[in-house]
Amino acid sequence: MVFTINSTPKKDGFRMPGEFEEHKGTWMLWPTRTDTWRSGAKPAQRVYIEVAKAISQFEPVTMCVKADQYENARALLPPNIRIVEISSNDAWMRDIGPTFVKNDKGEVRGVDWGFNAWGGLDEGLYFPWDLDLLVKQKVMDIEQISRYDATDIIIEGGAITVDGEGTLITTEQCVLNPNRNRNLSKKEMEEKLIEYLNVEKIIWLKDGLVGDETDGHVDEVVFFVRPGEVAMGWTDDQNHPQYEVLQDAYKRLSETTDAKGRKLKINKIQMPKQISLSEAESMEIDYSRFSYNRSPNLTFISTYINCYLCNGGVVLPTFNDPQDEHAIAAFQKMFPDRKIVTVNTREISVGGGNIHCITQQQPLG
Amino acid sequence: MVFTINSTPKKDGFRMPGEFEEHKGTWMLWPTRTDTWRSGAKPAQRVYIEVAKAISQFEPVTMCVKADQYENARALLPPNIRIVEISSNDAWMRDIGPTFVKNDKGEVRGVDWGFNAWGGLDEGLYFPWDLDLLVKQKVMDIEQISRYDATDIIIEGGAITVDGEGTLITTEQCVLNPNRNRNLSKKEMEEKLIEYLNVEKIIWLKDGLVGDETDGHVDEVVFFVRPGEVAMGWTDDQNHPQYEVLQDAYKRLSETTDAKGRKLKINKIQMPKQISLSEAESMEIDYSRFSYNRSPNLTFISTYINCYLCNGGVVLPTFNDPQDEHAIAAFQKMFPDRKIVTVNTREISVGGGNIHCITQQQPLG
Repeated sequence: MVFTINSTPKKDGFRMPGEFEEHKGTWMLWPTRTDTWRSGAKPAQRVYIEVAKAISQFEPVTMCVKADQYENARALLPPNIRIVEISSNDAWMRDIGPTFVKNDKGEVRGVDWGFNAWGGLDEGLYFPWDLDLLVKQKVMDIEQISRYDATDIIIEGGAITVDGEGTLITTEQCVLNPNRNRNLSKKEMEEKLIEYLNVEKIIWLKDGLVGDETDGHVDEVVFFVRPGEVAMGWTDDQNHPQYEVLQDAYKRLSETTDAKGRKLKINKIQMPKQISLSEAESMEIDYSRFSYNRSPNLTFISTYINCYLCNGGVVLPTFNDPQDEHAIAAFQKMFPDRKIVTVNTREISVGGGNIHCITQQQPLG
Repeated sequence: MVFTINSTPKKDGFRMPGEFEEHKGTWMLWPTRTDTWRSGAKPAQRVYIEVAKAISQFEPVTMCVKADQYENARALLPPNIRIVEISSNDAWMRDIGPTFVKNDKGEVRGVDWGFNAWGGLDEGLYFPWDLDLLVKQKVMDIEQISRYDATDIIIEGGAITVDGEGTLITTEQCVLNPNRNRNLSKKEMEEKLIEYLNVEKIIWLKDGLVGDETDGHVDEVVFFVRPGEVAMGWTDDQNHPQYEVLQDAYKRLSETTDAKGRKLKINKIQMPKQISLSEAESMEIDYSRFSYNRSPNLTFISTYINCYLCNGGVVLPTFNDPQDEHAIAAFQKMFPDRKIVTVNTREISVGGGNIHCITQQQPLG
């Protein structure tokens, strides 16, 4: 029995678990947009497959596809990956999928947030986003998970990261952006986040990374390794485009405490070089009046922080960059009990995100 | 793990259970075709809802809908009915859904038959049927049920009825029709049915009912109440359009034995009057070059036999016909331990089928 609950997770004793807690499985969406992804999305699909395969070493993966891609996806993906027909406008399950919450008895429910394609009619990344709007509910319907209706609050999964023990990190640039929730003050937004994620302490970073077309998602900047401990991108090179943002984020994270009153242990992961499209690659992307113009002079983010934690594993993006090997070593040190699996994800970066952006964990019930 | 098994149910010890055996749940498809269903399919949708609600008293129901009908279906169907996005060309889950098979350990698998819209390019009911072809596999994928590939044999679920103990009843008119499997002899077709349904005895009726656009599906003629016992439509009126077909079917059924050597107990259920569309109703159906022409001078079948057995219940079609009350009494006598729930299904009849045609049971694993 699935129904929409006229209450909030906080009132009902449900909280958003940390990504490092145990999952039932992972949800992904199959990329097809030819005005986001070059060459008919075929190179991106190959990388999505590698990510899905990497995760499926650790836990069940469900890939959602449009009707006309079912056969192709089924032919390309191994049989242990479940494929279901769920239509979407693009392929970012982190932002379009539900935020799952869980109570002490192990019952799982989902939060259905509002969504406006990262900024609405004027500043959003495409139009329309009608199919994206229904993905959360369709996922809950398949899984028969009850739903909290938070569609009056526009927020994406990539804009929040939690420790599962009462602490949320987010950015002002995204969550307080007038292109999302113009009618909510900072205090009102905090109240909403507290009600729907059941957190007690919100740590506000100012900005996300330079070149982030989502208006500064926190999941490109920092994530919780475990309660009390985070990992963030870092560079000592003052000419690196992300230098200033990361300095500011570090200052805020190092000067605060979490919901339990702990100072955060901060792991600094050296950043790779940022990425741009070649002229030839840019020409392989379809033109569309409403969509983000992927020109060769834009900077696309590359960072190891936009990784994904799954049961016993970490799926870590690499970029054929000299920093890759240092990142792998640093991750193995942070996660001595997890297997680190890498995927070269340059093709996803130039679409506007990375492994974290294209996945959504469903906690174990 | 879902995969296509390079074997057959018979070889692996899987059999098709009787419909009267316990179900995990029921699958249905949401009607939308405006060249099958009058008035934009809205009257039909209302009846499908009544059928889904009736079944959901007894067991879980999943309704499959196209992307653009998810919101509407979700608003109209109660929350205890699961809705999943699965696209189809029309809405006959009996014929388009998988045939589930089960072994003694309770493991369930699915047979993926070929399908050609009840007769192919020349004699089929519409074109294309590309989405229908994938429904079986999509259902198995959602449920993570392994698949037998029988796509080289064209058969519909409505063309077969089994007792779960080795006996199958079918019709020559449909299964041996050159518009289905031109290259298979009767003996070869029997071998296929034996391999994929794990039966030992095939009882062949000659024809299905008059006016059956599917070329004579057995599920309009007869069904197994329990092993050793069937119910069939009957009329003593020699002017009733179904008189001759039913005489012939009775003769064949009464003269044969089942796989266990039993004579069949035959319950005769008096037929209601057959149905036709009014001129006004016919004009509410869209014209399409490839689809069946639903003109006011066509006979559409009405029969109580195209009912559906679910856990502890029978969902029985009625037609606002004087025979309705006799049918209800006869069904209650045949099924003393099941609750009989009726739905007036005239609106489905004029689309070409009835409750059995729009449902598919998934056996309990």
